[in-house]
Amino acid sequence: MSVRIVLTEPSHPGNIGAAARAMKNMGLSELYLVNPKKFPHLDATVRASGADDILESAVVVNALPDALVGCERVYATSGQRERRLEWPLCTPREAAQEIQQAGTRSKTAIVFGRECSGLTNAELAYSHASINIPTIQSFSSLNLGAAVQVIAYELYYASLSIRPVKKVEDANSDPIATADELNSFLGHLSQTMTDVKFLNPQQPRKLMQRLRRFFQRVVMTKTEVNILRGFLAAIDKSLKQ
Amino acid sequence: MSVRIVLTEPSHPGNIGAAARAMKNMGLSELYLVNPKKFPHLDATVRASGADDILESAVVVNALPDALVGCERVYATSGQRERRLEWPLCTPREAAQEIQQAGTRSKTAIVFGRECSGLTNAELAYSHASINIPTIQSFSSLNLGAAVQVIAYELYYASLSIRPVKKVEDANSDPIATADELNSFLGHLSQTMTDVKFLNPQQPRKLMQRLRRFFQRVVMTKTEVNILRGFLAAIDKSLKQ
Repeated sequence: MSVRIVLTEPSHPGNIGAAARAMKNMGLSELYLVNPKKFPHLDATVRASGADDILESAVVVNALPDALVGCERVYATSGQRERRLEWPLCTPREAAQEIQQAGTRSKTAIVFGRECSGLTNAELAYSHASINIPTIQSFSSLNLGAAVQVIAYELYYASLSIRPVKKVEDANSDPIATADELNSFLGHLSQTMTDVKFLNPQQPRKLMQRLRRFFQRVVMTKTEVNILRGFLAAIDKSLKQ
Repeated sequence: MSVRIVLTEPSHPGNIGAAARAMKNMGLSELYLVNPKKFPHLDATVRASGADDILESAVVVNALPDALVGCERVYATSGQRERRLEWPLCTPREAAQEIQQAGTRSKTAIVFGRECSGLTNAELAYSHASINIPTIQSFSSLNLGAAVQVIAYELYYASLSIRPVKKVEDANSDPIATADELNSFLGHLSQTMTDVKFLNPQQPRKLMQRLRRFFQRVVMTKTEVNILRGFLAAIDKSLKQ
């Protein structure tokens, strides 16, 4: 199991420290911070309570896609309000089992939103599935560090049970495309769609959102991305003749 | 399920607030504090983040036995170092299932130790069993609020006999494309791929097999088929110009 924890624009450095401590307790080490308000910060170090190595090796980036480079699977943690989205939704336990089954060679990112406002729809669109931590409806917002703790705990718990059964499709299939490969493909698709006047670049949003959702859902392999990019390149070439 | 959370001599009022928030998220309300260093305290209120009702109704007592009055079962949370004790030891999940099975008429206390030093042997002796949150050995001390969060999460999860989380894609999404719609789409795709010389109609088999597998795997909706057919039609039109 190889998991990267991504915190999106955390406001409170204390929560970064709490996340680092929770990660270290559960054997996780890879922390990415998207545009944190204050970091490094004394509050983060205090709350990390000995998980300084995780804070020191944390990678700070400017935008969410930069935190997803190299990841085959992306889960977004999501509050109840986002349930309306047509997205595969799973519990932390289900996600942990999926990630455990995917094995150590597959890199997974788990994305956490801002303390107050969560993730935007554009940010949610980068994920293959959403994780919802079950809570009572009337008080559903977990503290950020606590949410990381629950997910990290489930991941560690899942890693303790030995899973002898391997999905056959995992055994034989091609490696999964990374988030950046998928993004490049979607960029290419968008360009070709514009060239054939299928996509209006003035109003691209809804169509590209739908297509992103579609291609995220399937969890594409590298070979599939390459095939479809080859098709797009052939279209481009034919148009120029 | 009727559960009382007992914090033993918490040093940091922030942790009391974090515990209250975690409890409220997971539908627990009964908090007992054994001789807290500072309570009430602004840090507790801030970290409770809206769970003020739990702080306000918290019962402060002088010694652990006073916090256990009326409880049929007592679980102590325990770090790895206490595993040597000859005590029934269970995971949070096992404890949550036991408590759930005991039903609502049985009152259970779950006792948490001090931030630095945990519970004394004398205090542990009041419990019927110990709960150990699994962690890596080299960094096994959870934050107090985080420990309450994990236990409260497991209790809530166990109480959900019906899984609350339903895959939204099942509930709200577009109808699934029929096999014939999918076949027509793949026929169209194959034709356009031939037109742009991406597909050799003399040797189409392997590529089209792969693409069929891809589009079958995702379970396409009618809308998605229509979008991709629209794209293909736009390509066809552009090629004729």
